[in-house]
Amino acid sequence: MKMIELIRKKRGGGELTRDEILFFVNGYTAGALPDYQVSALLMAVYFNGMTDAETAHLTGAMLHSGDIVDLRDISAYKVDKHSTGGVGDKISLVLAPVAAACGLALPMISGRGLGHTGGTLDKLESIPGFDVNLGLDHFKRIIKEIGFSMIGQTSEIAPADKKLYALRDVTATVESIPLICGSIMSKKLAEGIDGLVLDVKVGSGAFMKDIDSAKRLASSLVSIAMRMGKSCFAFLTDMSEPLGSYVGNAIEVIESIEILKGRIDDRQTELTVTLAGKMLELSGACDFDTGKERARRTLTDGSALEKFRQLVRLHGGDDKCIDDYDRLPQAEHRHEVKADRDGFVSKIDTMRVGLSAIALGAGRTALTDEIDHATGIKVVKKVADAVKMGDTLGVLYYNDKERRGDAAHMLETAYTIGTEQPARQKLFLD
Amino acid sequence: MKMIELIRKKRGGGELTRDEILFFVNGYTAGALPDYQVSALLMAVYFNGMTDAETAHLTGAMLHSGDIVDLRDISAYKVDKHSTGGVGDKISLVLAPVAAACGLALPMISGRGLGHTGGTLDKLESIPGFDVNLGLDHFKRIIKEIGFSMIGQTSEIAPADKKLYALRDVTATVESIPLICGSIMSKKLAEGIDGLVLDVKVGSGAFMKDIDSAKRLASSLVSIAMRMGKSCFAFLTDMSEPLGSYVGNAIEVIESIEILKGRIDDRQTELTVTLAGKMLELSGACDFDTGKERARRTLTDGSALEKFRQLVRLHGGDDKCIDDYDRLPQAEHRHEVKADRDGFVSKIDTMRVGLSAIALGAGRTALTDEIDHATGIKVVKKVADAVKMGDTLGVLYYNDKERRGDAAHMLETAYTIGTEQPARQKLFLD
Repeated sequence: MKMIELIRKKRGGGELTRDEILFFVNGYTAGALPDYQVSALLMAVYFNGMTDAETAHLTGAMLHSGDIVDLRDISAYKVDKHSTGGVGDKISLVLAPVAAACGLALPMISGRGLGHTGGTLDKLESIPGFDVNLGLDHFKRIIKEIGFSMIGQTSEIAPADKKLYALRDVTATVESIPLICGSIMSKKLAEGIDGLVLDVKVGSGAFMKDIDSAKRLASSLVSIAMRMGKSCFAFLTDMSEPLGSYVGNAIEVIESIEILKGRIDDRQTELTVTLAGKMLELSGACDFDTGKERARRTLTDGSALEKFRQLVRLHGGDDKCIDDYDRLPQAEHRHEVKADRDGFVSKIDTMRVGLSAIALGAGRTALTDEIDHATGIKVVKKVADAVKMGDTLGVLYYNDKERRGDAAHMLETAYTIGTEQPARQKLFLD
Repeated sequence: MKMIELIRKKRGGGELTRDEILFFVNGYTAGALPDYQVSALLMAVYFNGMTDAETAHLTGAMLHSGDIVDLRDISAYKVDKHSTGGVGDKISLVLAPVAAACGLALPMISGRGLGHTGGTLDKLESIPGFDVNLGLDHFKRIIKEIGFSMIGQTSEIAPADKKLYALRDVTATVESIPLICGSIMSKKLAEGIDGLVLDVKVGSGAFMKDIDSAKRLASSLVSIAMRMGKSCFAFLTDMSEPLGSYVGNAIEVIESIEILKGRIDDRQTELTVTLAGKMLELSGACDFDTGKERARRTLTDGSALEKFRQLVRLHGGDDKCIDDYDRLPQAEHRHEVKADRDGFVSKIDTMRVGLSAIALGAGRTALTDEIDHATGIKVVKKVADAVKMGDTLGVLYYNDKERRGDAAHMLETAYTIGTEQPARQKLFLD
């Protein structure tokens, strides 16, 4: 088999066979194929796409390039959630303890924030001592003990994806649905799960800006999961404004704990309960509505909070911060961004909110950037809220004074204030 | 400037600026940009094309990556021909002495054969002693003395093209009109010419199989030449059957000498005279028809033959072979491929004829392959010829008996014999 023939075939719109896909994925992972041929193939895939069969073969090849976590000795239904990433999306931190409290097992291998979207690992690391870099054996022990654990990518998981993603990142071939699907699904399936619930975000703060491309991504992801023999369900949810009120790391952890304490009942609660309900339905434990009720109960009876406390402790974190938020990183300064006119928030450019958080140090533009966990944004006004001139739209929490100006400008310009009150977007779009 | 932004721009269908094109061409030539980013950009160009302005900038950037031959002290009009490559196309060997005999200067820097198409340098090298690897100073001295010289690429000429071509060759990005144009024109313009005549081949033995794509290529080439301030004219000519009767190296040299001796008057003569006539017209020496007459006269009065003799001598070649063909490499064996039915030659898959010649050793599939200059094919029957069962369609000349079978099969299957006599394709298509 010759790599150039594969490139030529894909360039001409042909369908690669399973063997051809294995050849290039394994060849590249083993260092037997040069970067320049693989990047040419990836660009041809960008233009000509992949069929569902090709995408499933790609996923399989990347999945089997590394280890699959062996969870056979855990009898509970093993399930995970994947979100395509948003701003203020802290759902994993709440959903995992909720679902674990309902008796499910969640082997969560998560990512870091990149660009305007945050990452679960960064949020967890704002808890003093919390270690996300556990080996797979340690990870399994924790899941066995409390039903879930949350760690970062290990070198054993889908090494082909790691190598291909690094190449895509520098060759402008990230934004390709089959490549995105293969990357997501190979890592998720490597967790050894039985089922998967997807939260595909749509809107100004999401990777998918319109509902049609989000639907294509969702249906492709579900199709791959099915082909690989897994149960899967996808929700399309709104990301036309930040989720919840906080965007950052420590401040999102606080907001998550507040939800776990049952003190917040908003869209975040609704989304958590819905995803957990669907997980319980996929597991066969009960129907969707009963699942949602069971999930909601864990937020009022303290069982989800207790799961979270156990997680923090087992990962070496300071669990006292759950009751004393002052033990989490605190930003030195705060700055309020004010409305310059009366009216209604007609829309929020959510990506700009994410970029404002990056400007403060809460996110990163390159994977090597350091994060300042204390910083972030409180989103005070949401879409459709009435505002008067001088009202606070949002609050910046920051340490470095030089970073304030850019961040304030970006948050200010993220808001559009109009004279008519718009309808608020529904949370569940499809 | 960031390379990934250039890739993203071209991927999205944008137009690269002159500065952006200079950035990537110079960066790549200097080794400052990685192969994998350049190949991704080339694939994006394959899909989204380039405007005429972009193609001209690309040509300019590649041209100026190296030296331009300085022929200012030669007062004659400096002109060259470029053919997009065909089977049995030995026109350069005849045209250059004809045009030089008419008083034009031809600084021909030629290529080698690759794939089914032959190359001028390989043909010349079948003349014992003929050296095509002269330095540019030596090249200029010969042009000054006899009006023309024919050498191979030197490292000073368009090094950017050399590097980019090598990358395109292994990433399936050769077949892109703007990239082809840039490659051709940067090398031709580096010859220091005033004008250029193009012979764009169309048909089963050509790179362009249909007239529309050939027209696009021709018009793009002419447009670049114009933008670079050069006179240029393109002919579209038929390559639905081999040109002339011989395909190989030494045997094509013999056929060329026969034309120079005025002993052959066929399509090859017609094409030579037409191209030379157009060169004379571009030079302003005379009109097209007068130019053709002057060119034709050099084939009957011996002046073109004399120019060729001088060329061979000045390049260190054995000029006695012009009168004694036995001094050229001779193949040991011959094999006749016969018709298996009565009828008419309805078409010839000319690429297969070229591949048959490769199978005998007359061509190469990789630039590192060795050539056997003695081998080749005599094409006896052409399109529209009547054949009887048992008639010889073609003759294979070969040395290695193991190569005969494949070559014979390929030549046999190149012929389609039907019951109706087809019209013969015109030589000049547009």
